[in-house]
Amino acid sequence: MRDFLPQEVKRRERALNIIREVFESFGFLPMDTPALERTEILMGKYGSEGEKLIFRILKRGEQAISGESDLALRYDLTVPLARFFARYQNELPRPFRRYQIGPVWRADRPGKGRFREFYQCDIDIVNSPSLLADADIILALVKILSRFNLSNFVILLNSRKVLAGIIEAYGVPKSLQETTLINLDKIDKIGTEGVICELKKIDLPPSIMSQFECDLRQVGNDLENKIRENAIGREGLREVEELTSLLTPVLKGCEVKFSPLLVRGLNYYTGPIFEIYLKGRDGAIASGGRYDNLIEMFTEKRIPACGGSLGIDRLMSMVEISDDQEEQPISSLQVFVTLWDGNFRTDVLDIAEELRNSGISVEISLEEGKIGNQIRLALKRGARFCLFYGPDEKSKNEITIKDLQRGEQLTVKRNELTQKLKSLIQKR
Amino acid sequence: MRDFLPQEVKRRERALNIIREVFESFGFLPMDTPALERTEILMGKYGSEGEKLIFRILKRGEQAISGESDLALRYDLTVPLARFFARYQNELPRPFRRYQIGPVWRADRPGKGRFREFYQCDIDIVNSPSLLADADIILALVKILSRFNLSNFVILLNSRKVLAGIIEAYGVPKSLQETTLINLDKIDKIGTEGVICELKKIDLPPSIMSQFECDLRQVGNDLENKIRENAIGREGLREVEELTSLLTPVLKGCEVKFSPLLVRGLNYYTGPIFEIYLKGRDGAIASGGRYDNLIEMFTEKRIPACGGSLGIDRLMSMVEISDDQEEQPISSLQVFVTLWDGNFRTDVLDIAEELRNSGISVEISLEEGKIGNQIRLALKRGARFCLFYGPDEKSKNEITIKDLQRGEQLTVKRNELTQKLKSLIQKR
Repeated sequence: MRDFLPQEVKRRERALNIIREVFESFGFLPMDTPALERTEILMGKYGSEGEKLIFRILKRGEQAISGESDLALRYDLTVPLARFFARYQNELPRPFRRYQIGPVWRADRPGKGRFREFYQCDIDIVNSPSLLADADIILALVKILSRFNLSNFVILLNSRKVLAGIIEAYGVPKSLQETTLINLDKIDKIGTEGVICELKKIDLPPSIMSQFECDLRQVGNDLENKIRENAIGREGLREVEELTSLLTPVLKGCEVKFSPLLVRGLNYYTGPIFEIYLKGRDGAIASGGRYDNLIEMFTEKRIPACGGSLGIDRLMSMVEISDDQEEQPISSLQVFVTLWDGNFRTDVLDIAEELRNSGISVEISLEEGKIGNQIRLALKRGARFCLFYGPDEKSKNEITIKDLQRGEQLTVKRNELTQKLKSLIQKR
Repeated sequence: MRDFLPQEVKRRERALNIIREVFESFGFLPMDTPALERTEILMGKYGSEGEKLIFRILKRGEQAISGESDLALRYDLTVPLARFFARYQNELPRPFRRYQIGPVWRADRPGKGRFREFYQCDIDIVNSPSLLADADIILALVKILSRFNLSNFVILLNSRKVLAGIIEAYGVPKSLQETTLINLDKIDKIGTEGVICELKKIDLPPSIMSQFECDLRQVGNDLENKIRENAIGREGLREVEELTSLLTPVLKGCEVKFSPLLVRGLNYYTGPIFEIYLKGRDGAIASGGRYDNLIEMFTEKRIPACGGSLGIDRLMSMVEISDDQEEQPISSLQVFVTLWDGNFRTDVLDIAEELRNSGISVEISLEEGKIGNQIRLALKRGARFCLFYGPDEKSKNEITIKDLQRGEQLTVKRNELTQKLKSLIQKR
């Protein structure tokens, strides 16, 4: 988990504003859910590996001793959406296009660039079975990347139905299906031989194992032919082809690639799934898929839905590298008011109040002290102007303005201060 | 805990933007900390009552069985700031003026208008012992209230030193000090007799109890005379008087009131404390105080600090009532593109992409269907324009624009669409 210093909060806030803007320009509406969900809402949705990573809250009082837990920190923003939609469906537009930006928590072993608390930016379209919805989700995520001047990305596409086709074609027994898929998914990381090695560990029947070995080593047609052997596999291929044909004409110059072994960890996907990578960089910057059966776990009806998620941390780290925009100043401070001595505290507050009421941002000096030190502080704070109001000024009913950028100094009547500063700020 | 529907998220987002703007105009910088803190960071800071309300996280794996916990959800934003400041002090400006906006969690019994997850908007000034800092915190919080057109508020002031003076003057034994203060604090809620009744339950020595009874019933001078009996009490009164004299000239028309029995629940306060109420409304809308000893629990040095916190939930509920601003539309959608049939999906994506690249917000129809239904959907979404592109338009290389507000309809060349829409939007 991390702390964020002011400069970093500002960078993230600017990035989040761009993301919100793009989401809204696609017609997505914001919604929010609490960090904590009842434990039973989260269980049975993420697969056994995922479930282990859910942070659970200790019950209060007596039950704390027995380690009981009925609340847990959300693991993603999709399952909370499913619960939310089931509850508020009569108040929501249909299809419901939503976005949600917020932290999720996973009790992962912290690795490089991965955190146990991280922000997700999610969009989802609930109540549409159309592949246009899947396409629109991917296009919105890609639009964000282009708004950050990132280019050269690859979109990996697959369908859970393709994976179901593989499982069926090879006849993998039910108890080994999840582990088989998890291992096939590793092909990009550990290569063909690595996957074969991992598969050997899970006690697949020898006939299945030797088929996998054979087909994986000759990646490509053999696997695809296998997938075509059964109806569910063919349906998966059709989904991928159709989605590709929708995306390609719009995404000129961006690679859309069928990736038949792409799995995506989460259990709830049912149809097309995708990951977006920046070429030459590890780790997906965005990902998602269709989950037509998730919402019915909370409501009686089957409600088709699809969505995608963008990791702001990974995005920030990539923008850092390709950052060609000028760093903006950390502070938007315009005026710093120095303090002559303790007797002038009310005057300082009064001056600040007057200027702030005119929309000028003002920081006041809290301690009297050498004027040089106070000017140094004003400079550090990034203030443009510094004000002096001591016994001399007070007796003449004046105030001194120092322009810290130009080094110029002028004295004006006390009651002309706001007017003068406003015109100096505008002239800038 | 609560979910937030789109309209409510938008209202809150607008409110938070105003709050951020005011904080920044006072020279406060944003920072952020994670939701989870190590348990030992939070323990011993909030008093025994507060500590019971901390949500603790169950350790993962083996230890889960024994109910062990080493992480907890933050209870406020002040203790995380103290840890943060101790860690990053060399990278932070001095004095460090920070703001932080985020949720905190308390395992409270949910009452009306109170939640177990709620957002706090905090400002703090670290590294200044000056009462000007306390004044600036209060002024910033008051400024926010005026930005929401709230007026007629009361600022209740006290100092922990006044309370220490009371404890000393009455000779309350150490073991009963915390409970005595907690009960005195209830005077506004349960009245003098209620407080006396509660105090009787905690077994104060009879001589102390009868003094309390006597002085509380004649509230005012007797109590204040008592406070003046000892040095710490006098110092507390001086603080309150000085802070009042700093605030009153600036806060014209706003009541600043000494409230000698105001306690504020949190253990870490050491000096002036305050609560801001809207007249005639229960529950403080903002509150805070000085905590000169908290940061040294994380660093060797004594670092004076003060801060305040505004509850966005209470603010929103008050703004609701005094809301005279026009409700803004929930969606900023400009264009809705209808779908003729499945063969036009690529065209729809293409049109949307072109318009979005010109900064126009566009939602696409996901399902073909009766044109009347699609127009109804466009209206529901708040779109200004609806586009039609069917076989007829395609053959003539045209596209039809319907202005949903004026009911007008016109047909333009396909390649003039963006230009035409932009000028229609500008004319509006």
